[in-house]
Amino acid sequence: MEDPVAHKRSVTVADVAKAARVSKATAARVLGGYGVVSGKIKDQVMAAAAALEYRPNELARSMSTGRSGIIGVVVGDIENAFFSLAVRGITDAARVAGFNVIISNSGEKLEAEKSAVDLLIGKRVDGLIVTPARCDSIDHLRHVRRAGMPLVLFDRTIPELDVDSVTGDDREAAIAATRFMVGEGHRRLAYVSAMDAEGNGFIDIGGISNSAVRERVEGFVSVLTEAGSPNPVHYVRLGATDQPQTDAVIKRLLADPSPPTAILASDSLVGLRVFKSLQSLGLSIPDDVSMISFLDADWTTVTVPPITIVDQHVYEMGKLAGERLVARIEQSPLAVERLRVRTRLVTRGSVAKR
Amino acid sequence: MEDPVAHKRSVTVADVAKAARVSKATAARVLGGYGVVSGKIKDQVMAAAAALEYRPNELARSMSTGRSGIIGVVVGDIENAFFSLAVRGITDAARVAGFNVIISNSGEKLEAEKSAVDLLIGKRVDGLIVTPARCDSIDHLRHVRRAGMPLVLFDRTIPELDVDSVTGDDREAAIAATRFMVGEGHRRLAYVSAMDAEGNGFIDIGGISNSAVRERVEGFVSVLTEAGSPNPVHYVRLGATDQPQTDAVIKRLLADPSPPTAILASDSLVGLRVFKSLQSLGLSIPDDVSMISFLDADWTTVTVPPITIVDQHVYEMGKLAGERLVARIEQSPLAVERLRVRTRLVTRGSVAKR
Repeated sequence: MEDPVAHKRSVTVADVAKAARVSKATAARVLGGYGVVSGKIKDQVMAAAAALEYRPNELARSMSTGRSGIIGVVVGDIENAFFSLAVRGITDAARVAGFNVIISNSGEKLEAEKSAVDLLIGKRVDGLIVTPARCDSIDHLRHVRRAGMPLVLFDRTIPELDVDSVTGDDREAAIAATRFMVGEGHRRLAYVSAMDAEGNGFIDIGGISNSAVRERVEGFVSVLTEAGSPNPVHYVRLGATDQPQTDAVIKRLLADPSPPTAILASDSLVGLRVFKSLQSLGLSIPDDVSMISFLDADWTTVTVPPITIVDQHVYEMGKLAGERLVARIEQSPLAVERLRVRTRLVTRGSVAKR
Repeated sequence: MEDPVAHKRSVTVADVAKAARVSKATAARVLGGYGVVSGKIKDQVMAAAAALEYRPNELARSMSTGRSGIIGVVVGDIENAFFSLAVRGITDAARVAGFNVIISNSGEKLEAEKSAVDLLIGKRVDGLIVTPARCDSIDHLRHVRRAGMPLVLFDRTIPELDVDSVTGDDREAAIAATRFMVGEGHRRLAYVSAMDAEGNGFIDIGGISNSAVRERVEGFVSVLTEAGSPNPVHYVRLGATDQPQTDAVIKRLLADPSPPTAILASDSLVGLRVFKSLQSLGLSIPDDVSMISFLDADWTTVTVPPITIVDQHVYEMGKLAGERLVARIEQSPLAVERLRVRTRLVTRGSVAKR
């Protein structure tokens, strides 16, 4: 059986003051981190607080400073290396400024995102970094803005919402990757994304609710149009949400009377799934099918061949978002900025000449 | 410039009651989720609450139910696939039981872990799942227990602390992997971990502060002892914390007058680094050096050869930890359980016969 828990009275500022042999006001200044106190007195109070296992009353602290010292982050999918790396960037920036970070995962589901936003607001975070699951359903984010809570959008942007954002240069990144494949002689190019497919395969680019994916597809299509492709969206496919779905997407693409010779994968999870699909079909990369993946993920350098990727500088993106949010928390009147982090195409061995 | 924020008065239960044309008591019952209310009335109140963008006052809600509905999770390293997969398991279990999850990352640093635990307690979570960075520095976890806060340890266990834990069968897993390599004819086996190395290379197994790593090393050593190895710890190496460190560890191992012929990697981050080290040295796996890695990570199936791994059933581990914590939150008097999830050796192509 569980041990009976000895219920302990909370240690108060007065207890700490007594143990440290200072006035209650002095102890409060040290423990609250305000006012000027000599280093020696500070050490004395901190030692007493540690010995007594003093824990500040969060509510009292946040009432006195007006801040909780916590940044809330709602990520799209914590299992995606993109987000876990971004979280490190955010956390590093927050730590430098004296903020802690709590994370909630939306799994790219709008309802879970709303609930995560509510939760973090309820927990009195000082500001939020959110990766919106859908850029076309934003009432809950409007509410955050109206409540005066500092907000930075991450990876995706919402023009109708006048808030800071940190994204990649998604259109330009897709243009560079697509141009590279066209330059190597490819004419039938596919774009594969994990976005949930709606409808029956018809791609309404403007209707893609994730701005990053939409801009990448727009960039991809613009290069094919430029290159004279009669139907540049012909090989654009959504719905590669897991391995079986991706296998199905790839099989359908390759069953086309004129199958694509190269594939651009929208993120590294999709890229890995596409790689596995091609592998399981016994196809050789790049001789049978060429591919490029977004994100410089771990796996892209240990495959044979290593994968040509779009380096998104994700740590940097996270760091910028963290810094921006801290600036917004600490100095209210700032112009809204939509920051774009430049990507870089890193050519390895997964695109063949045609 | 930022738009001036229209400051909005908070919507109260009374406002919702008025809009829904019900009594305040009825509205409170629906919004608080207690008592019995007809489905029609419930819909009416929820519709009014949605229209008014009513947000429950967290503090009031937690005072009435005694719970915040939130589980706090402190992970070792969110960039490690082990933890991001575990978080999905925890989150799924929590969601089924009506709990939300907030995550904080210790980066395997004791001080960051303490601060994360403080933070989550301050945020009035109903319970904590913690991966202790060190199993030999536990005052902050004792404090959690003394405060009566439900706690489940994840991945590592602390015998001196009488709390639930969910771990793998680390000793048995290492025994199975090591026996397999010995069975294939290997006699000089190395064990490589990312644990920070202390001291000058002397390995005091009992002093390894991470119980999972310690048990794995113990299992590894027991098999080598059984097989008549004169010095079974000779090739046990810590400190493979990043790629350069791992390169150095591997170079030193292979510079031994009798270099090891097979390597057991303590987790999938270490496994990937070992793979890259061997690759950069121009060594062939498994012909020059064999290897096994813990964790069925994504990358292990796309390499040539695919990597023999210890499948740790991490999602299942996370789910169990979530379920255990929920049970502990909902029904206090439960016997302490130390749950161990059985692992499975999955043989692929990275171990050669000698």
